[in-house]
Amino acid sequence: MRVGLVQQRFYGTKELTIEASLKSIKKLKKDKADLIVLQELHQDRYFCINENVDSFDLADDYESDLVFWSKVAKEEKIVLVTSLFEKRAAGLYHNTVVVFEKDGAIAGKYRKMHIPDDPGFYEKFYFTPGDLGYEPIETSVGKLGVLICWDQWFPEAARVMSLKGADVLIYPTAIGWFDEDSEEEKKRQLDAWITIQRSHAIANGIPVISVNRVGKELDDAKVIDGISFWGNSFVVDSQGAFIFRASVSEEEMVVNIDLKKSEEIRRIWPFFRDRRIDSYEGLLKRYID
Amino acid sequence: MRVGLVQQRFYGTKELTIEASLKSIKKLKKDKADLIVLQELHQDRYFCINENVDSFDLADDYESDLVFWSKVAKEEKIVLVTSLFEKRAAGLYHNTVVVFEKDGAIAGKYRKMHIPDDPGFYEKFYFTPGDLGYEPIETSVGKLGVLICWDQWFPEAARVMSLKGADVLIYPTAIGWFDEDSEEEKKRQLDAWITIQRSHAIANGIPVISVNRVGKELDDAKVIDGISFWGNSFVVDSQGAFIFRASVSEEEMVVNIDLKKSEEIRRIWPFFRDRRIDSYEGLLKRYID
Repeated sequence: MRVGLVQQRFYGTKELTIEASLKSIKKLKKDKADLIVLQELHQDRYFCINENVDSFDLADDYESDLVFWSKVAKEEKIVLVTSLFEKRAAGLYHNTVVVFEKDGAIAGKYRKMHIPDDPGFYEKFYFTPGDLGYEPIETSVGKLGVLICWDQWFPEAARVMSLKGADVLIYPTAIGWFDEDSEEEKKRQLDAWITIQRSHAIANGIPVISVNRVGKELDDAKVIDGISFWGNSFVVDSQGAFIFRASVSEEEMVVNIDLKKSEEIRRIWPFFRDRRIDSYEGLLKRYID
Repeated sequence: MRVGLVQQRFYGTKELTIEASLKSIKKLKKDKADLIVLQELHQDRYFCINENVDSFDLADDYESDLVFWSKVAKEEKIVLVTSLFEKRAAGLYHNTVVVFEKDGAIAGKYRKMHIPDDPGFYEKFYFTPGDLGYEPIETSVGKLGVLICWDQWFPEAARVMSLKGADVLIYPTAIGWFDEDSEEEKKRQLDAWITIQRSHAIANGIPVISVNRVGKELDDAKVIDGISFWGNSFVVDSQGAFIFRASVSEEEMVVNIDLKKSEEIRRIWPFFRDRRIDSYEGLLKRYID
């Protein structure tokens, strides 16, 4: 599997941002990527930085967005992982990944299951939690276990996706720092973010692709100053070892993932063999008082 | 919580090995440890290196081992985490942690739930999988979420223990390298072992203590050469950040763990709030075909 990652900033408008993405996609395709992954909500600014009813307007284009990215996938003959703001009905919106096949057909969708909510990341205001569960998306390059950002902190999601036969886990993401945090705290947060995702690779013997945005975006509502998205997109193999790791700057990159390594690793570390499924009922509880 | 860790080699006999442990315990107590954690099966060699019916004899001392370590806990006035070979009945053995209170009483037991089996680690031959589930052990220093070695690769065990209110996760361990593996492979294995355990701290907002053995132990059966136990015992805080990390040599150490940090971290990363317990049924399945 040859995967291209686009780690990008917001260019001030949707049009300019998409233009930059297209430039990256063409470059990655020229470099023989057959799967390209874009970051979370890659078309626009990270609007969840504050709560504003007008921001729901951004989802009005969902149907035309689908037509647009379908055409891109077809023209470039790539499997394309897009992350869109889905309007499902009035007052019903999702944070949705749509995967397009090389012929432009929709291969599948994933609606973000775990929704965060903290200052600067007001996603519970915008997104209804996903109702499609964890279904790997069948494509010509493999079964893609697509999850989104906050999902990455939940080993449960990675596990179910893996037990359903995903070949790779993919996390389009938008996560960053507050400038006022200390350098030590920033380092700890970034380190935790990488560690938890590498752990999904290790626990499940499966490669992980994580694509984050970069650049600072300000909060118009002035509740917070803004978010400095920390980039650091990465790919690890089925043992959790780095294949690639980006910086905090804008970049695109192509990496090869050896899907056969999962078989090799799961033979030496056969965790699926030894799971004590008779003892996991507690996982279905909120808390066990 | 002031915890002492004993990372130790096998001294050739049970008597000499215990003598070394006692020396470390006294030293740690002098340094004001109120909880002391010993490594997996710390009394003796790692006998699971091969399959030998005579090795079951090692469990004959289980009852006297309990008396012995109870006395140690009482004399030193410490909460003591021991890892013993439990004979429960003829032909029924467990890999069992017994935690002693400062007055020598048994605070609780945990029987290893996930049992490995691969060349050099023939534990399925020796140990019946645990039947006590994941119950934090109430002690005067906190609720101890004790798990054992191979359990560390399973996010499910750490999660259930955390949902049951554990204050800290503790993993007595015996894991090592084969000398014939490449340096790169050794590095990847050690890195994966640390990463998966740090991820339990991160996913659950809980500190993690892991205590491993050191030294090379040979395989009398000559199926393999032996195991070089890799040490690297460590403690991470509720954000997964290192408080302490040992080398590959024998050492004992005392570290402070701030249990209040769990409250702080769980406020900024409230993963327990957002778990999608309505979507985790797949976790109770072996595989989802």
